[in-house]
Amino acid sequence: MSSYWNERTKNLSPYVPGEQPKDRQFIKLNTNENPYPPSPKVIEAIKQAANDSLRLYPDPECTDFRKAVAQRYGVKLEQVFAGNGSDEILAFAFGAFFEKTILFPDITYSFYPVYADLWDIPYCPIPLQEDFSIQISDYKVPSDGVILPNPNAPTGIALSIEEILSIAEFMERQKKVLIIDEAYIAFGADSAVAYIEKNKNLLTVHTLSKSASLAGLRAGFAIGNEKLIEGLCRIRDSFNSYTLDRLALAGAKAAIEDYVYYDEINKRVINTRERTAKVLSELGFIVSPSSANFLFVKHPKTSGAELFANLRERGILARHFNKNRIADHLRVSIGTDDEMDKFLSACREIIIN
Amino acid sequence: MSSYWNERTKNLSPYVPGEQPKDRQFIKLNTNENPYPPSPKVIEAIKQAANDSLRLYPDPECTDFRKAVAQRYGVKLEQVFAGNGSDEILAFAFGAFFEKTILFPDITYSFYPVYADLWDIPYCPIPLQEDFSIQISDYKVPSDGVILPNPNAPTGIALSIEEILSIAEFMERQKKVLIIDEAYIAFGADSAVAYIEKNKNLLTVHTLSKSASLAGLRAGFAIGNEKLIEGLCRIRDSFNSYTLDRLALAGAKAAIEDYVYYDEINKRVINTRERTAKVLSELGFIVSPSSANFLFVKHPKTSGAELFANLRERGILARHFNKNRIADHLRVSIGTDDEMDKFLSACREIIIN
Repeated sequence: MSSYWNERTKNLSPYVPGEQPKDRQFIKLNTNENPYPPSPKVIEAIKQAANDSLRLYPDPECTDFRKAVAQRYGVKLEQVFAGNGSDEILAFAFGAFFEKTILFPDITYSFYPVYADLWDIPYCPIPLQEDFSIQISDYKVPSDGVILPNPNAPTGIALSIEEILSIAEFMERQKKVLIIDEAYIAFGADSAVAYIEKNKNLLTVHTLSKSASLAGLRAGFAIGNEKLIEGLCRIRDSFNSYTLDRLALAGAKAAIEDYVYYDEINKRVINTRERTAKVLSELGFIVSPSSANFLFVKHPKTSGAELFANLRERGILARHFNKNRIADHLRVSIGTDDEMDKFLSACREIIIN
Repeated sequence: MSSYWNERTKNLSPYVPGEQPKDRQFIKLNTNENPYPPSPKVIEAIKQAANDSLRLYPDPECTDFRKAVAQRYGVKLEQVFAGNGSDEILAFAFGAFFEKTILFPDITYSFYPVYADLWDIPYCPIPLQEDFSIQISDYKVPSDGVILPNPNAPTGIALSIEEILSIAEFMERQKKVLIIDEAYIAFGADSAVAYIEKNKNLLTVHTLSKSASLAGLRAGFAIGNEKLIEGLCRIRDSFNSYTLDRLALAGAKAAIEDYVYYDEINKRVINTRERTAKVLSELGFIVSPSSANFLFVKHPKTSGAELFANLRERGILARHFNKNRIADHLRVSIGTDDEMDKFLSACREIIIN
């Protein structure tokens, strides 16, 4: 605490990102990074952009990157917003659209309540079902907005498009915004992007951190109705006119264009996930059905904290959330086949001993 | 307007950055970019960082960049905050420290009232003197905070260290924060950094956009008491954990380390400014005494809008603010000697005709 802080700063409980170890080599399965490198075309585009034009401001409208997104997803340029990772876009979206009570699951991306507190937005966490699935009727009640990740994190469980549209249509009658956070959409769930024209209150938010192997580049985008995008721009331009630098803009554009490369590596991640889930089940783990690049697991013989510590001892980092209902679980990012073999061996050792 | 926007979004008047022309080649004297390229060491550091590790999140604490700043300025690591340009740092600072009425000049960086509106902070613009100087007694009144650029923009006029410390000491008695925005400090004014240990309410904010020729990289830093830095971190970590990507971090660190290069190019900018100011005065312009990389000028024979349009026609972009008290002025960034010669020729033509 400090007497220089205002009430907001005093009362916030900031988000704590997963550990980025510095001194020791770990098999890093804790922050859902992609185990495969970015496309060589991305690296090349960044090197090309590392030139004297860095003395000039970047394009504040991120036109070239947004054009690539618009073309790839078959939407208009005015329906695309570019941001410094999906985290920044979500922060802007909370600031742009919500002010009274909003709804999101009790178990979900733990940044949502933090954004709400930042902007002083009341929220009501809706409990997931016993099996961690989302019951859509819970969200068809009056609210100032809803945000749902699809698939949900850290559970990995996906909603169907029909379920999402049914919430969107209910909320459109109240002129309220439904945000679908599609950070993990490339790993198996169905995207709602095709429905933004029909559902004008539907905003989909995307990141290049996971599916484009670019967590270190900080780029994301949102797709939605022109008026939603304009709302995001109004907040961004009241905060920082240029949040993507020239290098990130060049790399992000190249990544969107090289979807052939990324489809291939993400298919590999999905295959590794399915194989890992199968072996974990055989070892007695309870594994939630995942459409993401991670698995949400628990084992009747160990607590989440113990399993986390035992894995860490063996040089493997997973993510443990010391929270109600999920303290016995771990979220495990999908690494390479080799990394997952080592993870599975460690699990075998821990569970059998 | 849109029915999806909240009250904040509806009421904001976002900042409008200077034009970044796309189709036509201009002599670009409108956004205070440095006319000289970034240090070759910066370009090299960025190329080195453009590798497969981009798949991993960046260091959320920006340790290496902050260490370089701490070493360069003789402060502790915990007294340094790193951000996506000084604009982002200012947005965080408004969000962290202010909630009741704050003070800043009526003529100053036009983003300040926008930040205040974003966070719903009341503000009272304090009129500059007739000659555009700041009268420090105006700020020694009860307030929830003060922000002053030194030198001020768009006037270029600097305050002395004694004046700044006298405001800081008055405000410390009320435990209120004084932000000194040192975006243009490298061009002649005296920095307040050396006084942050003694004045615990003093936060200095810096950018690499101007003096380090890196407007396109989006990097800045703040120096102040540990508790002020912690307050900024609390807001940042409630907004976006990683706002600087791996490339920006690498480039920013290299820039801070290569101050020999930057001292040299910034000295050239200062020399060009002095020469340009002298010729403009001879042409009958009224030129405010500038400690920045721009000049704030007007001419009795033409309005600001006319001069702007006439220069634009001749391929020269300057910045015109269509605002009370300064509508007759132009802010002209300092370019290379060659660019300023062309600017002066154009002025001669416009004024004599």
